[in-house]
Amino acid sequence: MVDTDTRKRRGGGRAGAAARRGKAVIEQMPWRLPVNTDRPTEPLPPEGVEAIHDGAMRILEEIGVAFYNEEALALFREAGCSVDGEIVRMGRDWVMEMVAKAPREFTLTPRNPDRTLRIGGNVILFGNVSSPPNYWDMEIGRKVPGNREQCRNLLKLTQYFNCIHFAGGYPVEPVDIHASVRHLDVLYDKLTISDKVMHAYSLGKERVEDVMEMVRIAGGLSDEEFEATPRMYTNINSTSPLKHDHPMIDGCLRLARRGQAIVVTPFTLAGAMAPVTMAGAVAQSLAEALCAIALFQYVRPGIPCVIGTFTSNVDMKSGAPAFGTPEYMRATQMTGQMARFYGLPVRSSGVCAANVPDGQAMWETSNSLWAAVQSGTNMVYHAAGWLEGGLIASPEKFIMDCEVLQQIQRYMEPATYATTPDDIALEAIRAVGNDGHFFGIQHTQDRYTTAFYQPFLSDWKNYEGWEAAGAIWTPERAHHLFKEIIGSFEAPEMDEGIREELADFVARRKAEGGAPTDF
Amino acid sequence: MVDTDTRKRRGGGRAGAAARRGKAVIEQMPWRLPVNTDRPTEPLPPEGVEAIHDGAMRILEEIGVAFYNEEALALFREAGCSVDGEIVRMGRDWVMEMVAKAPREFTLTPRNPDRTLRIGGNVILFGNVSSPPNYWDMEIGRKVPGNREQCRNLLKLTQYFNCIHFAGGYPVEPVDIHASVRHLDVLYDKLTISDKVMHAYSLGKERVEDVMEMVRIAGGLSDEEFEATPRMYTNINSTSPLKHDHPMIDGCLRLARRGQAIVVTPFTLAGAMAPVTMAGAVAQSLAEALCAIALFQYVRPGIPCVIGTFTSNVDMKSGAPAFGTPEYMRATQMTGQMARFYGLPVRSSGVCAANVPDGQAMWETSNSLWAAVQSGTNMVYHAAGWLEGGLIASPEKFIMDCEVLQQIQRYMEPATYATTPDDIALEAIRAVGNDGHFFGIQHTQDRYTTAFYQPFLSDWKNYEGWEAAGAIWTPERAHHLFKEIIGSFEAPEMDEGIREELADFVARRKAEGGAPTDF
Repeated sequence: MVDTDTRKRRGGGRAGAAARRGKAVIEQMPWRLPVNTDRPTEPLPPEGVEAIHDGAMRILEEIGVAFYNEEALALFREAGCSVDGEIVRMGRDWVMEMVAKAPREFTLTPRNPDRTLRIGGNVILFGNVSSPPNYWDMEIGRKVPGNREQCRNLLKLTQYFNCIHFAGGYPVEPVDIHASVRHLDVLYDKLTISDKVMHAYSLGKERVEDVMEMVRIAGGLSDEEFEATPRMYTNINSTSPLKHDHPMIDGCLRLARRGQAIVVTPFTLAGAMAPVTMAGAVAQSLAEALCAIALFQYVRPGIPCVIGTFTSNVDMKSGAPAFGTPEYMRATQMTGQMARFYGLPVRSSGVCAANVPDGQAMWETSNSLWAAVQSGTNMVYHAAGWLEGGLIASPEKFIMDCEVLQQIQRYMEPATYATTPDDIALEAIRAVGNDGHFFGIQHTQDRYTTAFYQPFLSDWKNYEGWEAAGAIWTPERAHHLFKEIIGSFEAPEMDEGIREELADFVARRKAEGGAPTDF
Repeated sequence: MVDTDTRKRRGGGRAGAAARRGKAVIEQMPWRLPVNTDRPTEPLPPEGVEAIHDGAMRILEEIGVAFYNEEALALFREAGCSVDGEIVRMGRDWVMEMVAKAPREFTLTPRNPDRTLRIGGNVILFGNVSSPPNYWDMEIGRKVPGNREQCRNLLKLTQYFNCIHFAGGYPVEPVDIHASVRHLDVLYDKLTISDKVMHAYSLGKERVEDVMEMVRIAGGLSDEEFEATPRMYTNINSTSPLKHDHPMIDGCLRLARRGQAIVVTPFTLAGAMAPVTMAGAVAQSLAEALCAIALFQYVRPGIPCVIGTFTSNVDMKSGAPAFGTPEYMRATQMTGQMARFYGLPVRSSGVCAANVPDGQAMWETSNSLWAAVQSGTNMVYHAAGWLEGGLIASPEKFIMDCEVLQQIQRYMEPATYATTPDDIALEAIRAVGNDGHFFGIQHTQDRYTTAFYQPFLSDWKNYEGWEAAGAIWTPERAHHLFKEIIGSFEAPEMDEGIREELADFVARRKAEGGAPTDF
């Protein structure tokens, strides 16, 4: 574990204080950057890696990728790539030379430095669900368009749970806020509710610049300080097959020039926007990601870039996207293997197709989360709260997912497989012999309270105990916890002057009309 | 995949006919022996393997294991082990010499040879839930003691699903049948409802002998034919810590002498019957299993033996057993790693602590099933239908689990990560270019129907479609399927003469009083 909590160092720190405040509702695991020491599951033999790499390179060399962004086209031309209308073709030597400039590992430092993240290596980090237009909870009992209050509540969960390391996009799209100023209100909410690493949507220069400015203000930073090290990130999708749209590239270039981090995540749905064969869908995804990363490295060598995977398959019957499938798992593993080949950190997701937080939701989500672990993923997007293929955010699902994430965090702890003499416990076994039990002995007493994962949502009572407690199924238990957490939530500390500066910035930019909405 | 379905060979076979009959309710994956090509997740460094091995050996050398079985004690004495009352101590050289006689791989041939299993290597096989005393389904809506009808229905699911490879113990204990004759009625049901590999409880010589005889009759075999190759198996638990009870060892010796297979599965619950530290619980489990396997190899060198793991942890708050936890996963992986060190096939389980088939049930079960995959497990016990730590069997859970098992089976198929030129699909990507989609192209059309896993229970409709179809949550969908499968179930073929012989055997043994119940 990499422990960036500084309680020991300075008697608590902000993360420590937040953890203490949260104690009233549940006992959760401490803030940690889990280290994944499992050898990744690598389905590809060396010739498989070579085949996918060659496929991705031939896509870039022979077929090309469309960039609907004049600035990008000029840069590619300048770099010596072949630009034919919007189609850019590039040689593998240049692509590999550029991609090699990206760091294998970097940090992201939010306004609370105790929440600094290490991206890359064998650290695995989790973020909240991002961008569903709709919301579902057990009280409402149906799918409704998202609003600001729901968005705020999900941001509170994002902040509350120590197993959530970074804030993704809006945890639900607050459609009750006009699109021109939505980013201002939500970023104000995000920055005041959470002190974790922030994200900016690449949806036009005004939004990107506003968010960077707000993150700078919230951190109490000068421009120079903001740019000195990555403070935030964006995540873009290509428009598969083989297209990058204007605002995404524009946003990335703006972040790159100010030293901020970029995640490039093609959404290559096999059988729809990509070949029906998983290796083909992965090759296309890699091509789409690598050409953008090469561009960003050309513009700003060494800028932190993460290669994302969002390769899944469609339902053979309806063409609808499916998630957390066996094919999804293999695509994630293959992409992880290829990301190591390219020396880039990798992002995957926690996903499902289920519409409600039931058994299907959890086997699909478990499949995708264990695939993240197996693939050596560094950033797990949508790790908590996702339903209906990303069209619904749910607080119950959020809390259920956090129980799974905590289990993964615990699974990573070397204590679970340590083999010191104390762990082998020969003397304890000798003391108990053939006719006793281990409940009362000193070896057990000394380790009992920390020996095992302690759930906050799983109900381990027997049936009779569970029945006596109301026979409550998992989503309803999660709903109760949701209400309690929101009811007792305390926002992390923020300097009053900074809060006012943020509010003033929002007011000023609203008065100016916010961002255009004709994109 | 190892395909033991002989449809191509002789136009269908019995498994083929059964698959066709089942087609009316769901389209399921074909009968296969899935091959797990993933490199196992091995948490132990070489010195960790050595530490656990040394711990297990020192337990056997210094502490010893109690065998409450005179015959076993005499055999150990004969073999030169130290026998002090019931406590047997044995040197590691002898243990390792005996264990080395066990085959790394063997077959189990049931009455339908198309259902022959290969146990060991990298084949992973699944069995139904075994031995819960209670039953829960959505119609009853509460926990009730099991009965014969429920047991028969769960056996029909065992037979129906191609992803279930072997029958475990009674899928629910039919307490409406007197214990003295229960084994006769249930084995009659099992053998007539299913043609898959059968299990015998080691609960007294009459039961074991009766079951062996019934399996022999059902297979139409002479005694010599029955004994020529393993036809069935037993699974025993030690009584942790460090005890083997009379009937289990007796049953195993009877099976061993007739060439049948033995699974030895200690139930070492860390913090209760084993050390609170997982490596200690694993070392103790290995010691308990290896001493029994050594005995069986001494009696009958080369007899098929499987090392089982059932190491989990207790709830720190209540002392209740927990399942599918992070510690459970690591214990399973460590045991798999040790089993390969000893050259033995390994058995683990699909387990959960949840009381109803909800989200918790599925994340706990997913954790345990993926741990089975990661550990290189060969036989997955309780893979479908288990609730409440094994105290409840549920048909809805059975069907939900089968959806997960099918996904694991599909995940194992090399097609999911193949990288031939057809898979990389460069020409398809070229044909679609930057501005099309892959739905209609020939490459997709040629592969569409078999490219992806097709679920039978997961609902991949969008929310509106799901709502229009009744907004049915997973367990209720599973319940409907359960009713349909049971309603249209057709038993596999059985020669009428054999059926009569079985019935006559049951009648005769009942007239003789069955088995004693004072064990």
